[in-house]
Amino acid sequence: MNFIESLNASWEKSASLLCVGLDPDPEKFPARLSGCHDAIFRFCVEIVDATADLVCCFKPQIAHFSAHRAETQLEDLIAYIHLNYPEIPVILDAKRGDIGSTAERYAAEAFIRYAADAVTVNPYMGGDSIAPYLAYPDKGIALLCRTSNPGSGDLQLLDTGGMKLYERVARLAADKWNSNRQCALVVGATYPAEIARIREITGDLPLLVPGIGAQGGDLRSTVEAGCATRGTGLIINSSRAILYADSVDPAGGARKAAREMRDAINRYRAPAPTVP
Amino acid sequence: MNFIESLNASWEKSASLLCVGLDPDPEKFPARLSGCHDAIFRFCVEIVDATADLVCCFKPQIAHFSAHRAETQLEDLIAYIHLNYPEIPVILDAKRGDIGSTAERYAAEAFIRYAADAVTVNPYMGGDSIAPYLAYPDKGIALLCRTSNPGSGDLQLLDTGGMKLYERVARLAADKWNSNRQCALVVGATYPAEIARIREITGDLPLLVPGIGAQGGDLRSTVEAGCATRGTGLIINSSRAILYADSVDPAGGARKAAREMRDAINRYRAPAPTVP
Repeated sequence: MNFIESLNASWEKSASLLCVGLDPDPEKFPARLSGCHDAIFRFCVEIVDATADLVCCFKPQIAHFSAHRAETQLEDLIAYIHLNYPEIPVILDAKRGDIGSTAERYAAEAFIRYAADAVTVNPYMGGDSIAPYLAYPDKGIALLCRTSNPGSGDLQLLDTGGMKLYERVARLAADKWNSNRQCALVVGATYPAEIARIREITGDLPLLVPGIGAQGGDLRSTVEAGCATRGTGLIINSSRAILYADSVDPAGGARKAAREMRDAINRYRAPAPTVP
Repeated sequence: MNFIESLNASWEKSASLLCVGLDPDPEKFPARLSGCHDAIFRFCVEIVDATADLVCCFKPQIAHFSAHRAETQLEDLIAYIHLNYPEIPVILDAKRGDIGSTAERYAAEAFIRYAADAVTVNPYMGGDSIAPYLAYPDKGIALLCRTSNPGSGDLQLLDTGGMKLYERVARLAADKWNSNRQCALVVGATYPAEIARIREITGDLPLLVPGIGAQGGDLRSTVEAGCATRGTGLIINSSRAILYADSVDPAGGARKAAREMRDAINRYRAPAPTVP
């Protein structure tokens, strides 16, 4: 199965659109992990085990590993997910963007070294900067389109002859760049009207939506604006609101927060899924 | 000294606008390095030692390390350059782009873990995505503006109300985002007319110019279009054409190629510098 097929199967099996973002922050770990040489791996494994039946995807964020010299722990974490939860796709959040031989190296990093199923990529350098990722036919990319931060409008909202820049990116990702059906888009939950516009442009393209929880997006309007046909099409990411819900019992807190968020999302899906 | 001051001092001392890009490719290393556990570090050190008196900067490209699980060798390489050639700034080519706590982690990766003097950054996510780098007052960023690849026009050439997208980025980098004078721009050598336009917009902002050598940019028109007042303002990068000039004697080949390129660049500078 390629990435999009795996994602469809995972949406179906989990009855969840929730993605848990793995953004480990050692300063927020419980005291019992202090001093462990692989505390980042252990913390993330606790979260993964506590939430695996509640999610459609996991999304480790690479900077939270690389800033701590923890690349090996990231390799081990993704291997752990594949081994124990082979039906759950892993999206490596790296937002890479480069060309030619360098993009080939980034693709090798994401897909060979880390064995991710998909990677987030920045579209600013254009079509040939994403081609090296698409050369892996079973893998996917999630292209930045309309991000959830206050400054995202500096470029993304510029009018480019009747279409905003992010709408151009959505169209390129849905048409010209998606000949092998490998593309998804990153669209912040802070702008539901724009999610609706992107859904209109892209048909059933998967949308990876950060900004729920700590960043304050409105869940109902996000789900209603973003769902594709059959009530899927969204990968709704939450990181901090799940990982750090309970500072003493991260696994218990994460499970409770993830279950609540999955259920809240499902209330607004049409048709509503049957939770296993 | 902050990054821009170091760069000015380095241009002055070296009488060179050449930057050697450290893009190690183990498949192109000489046979004597095969089997070495730190072949990437050793190869790069040979190149650094052979060219240090001919360059204004070094620019290691991180994907060429991370795809080979060689982060430690990258740390060691940058430490080696700082120790042995403390006057030469190191630009980490990583093209990162993210927000909030994640961008803080990327900044920590570049400036604390790797101790780079500057890092390349993607502007697509807007002003708040670059703020965490600018929070290090002695460090710099080189923002992608007009890149040298064929697909770069997909977004960068879009007309945004009388200015192309890359011109908007140039203006933001020169004005709104540069309050503490920490910004440079990445501008491909394949478009000299656009280098001239960017120079016009940005005054004396440093321009990091890839695309010389293997990518085929024209040196004379690049230098004439891009030099700032006093014949500086350019960081002209060459990677493969220097690193792999001689497959048997990489150091000798690199020195010869770097000297030729430095001299060729200097022929077109006005005023011409006095080489030490």
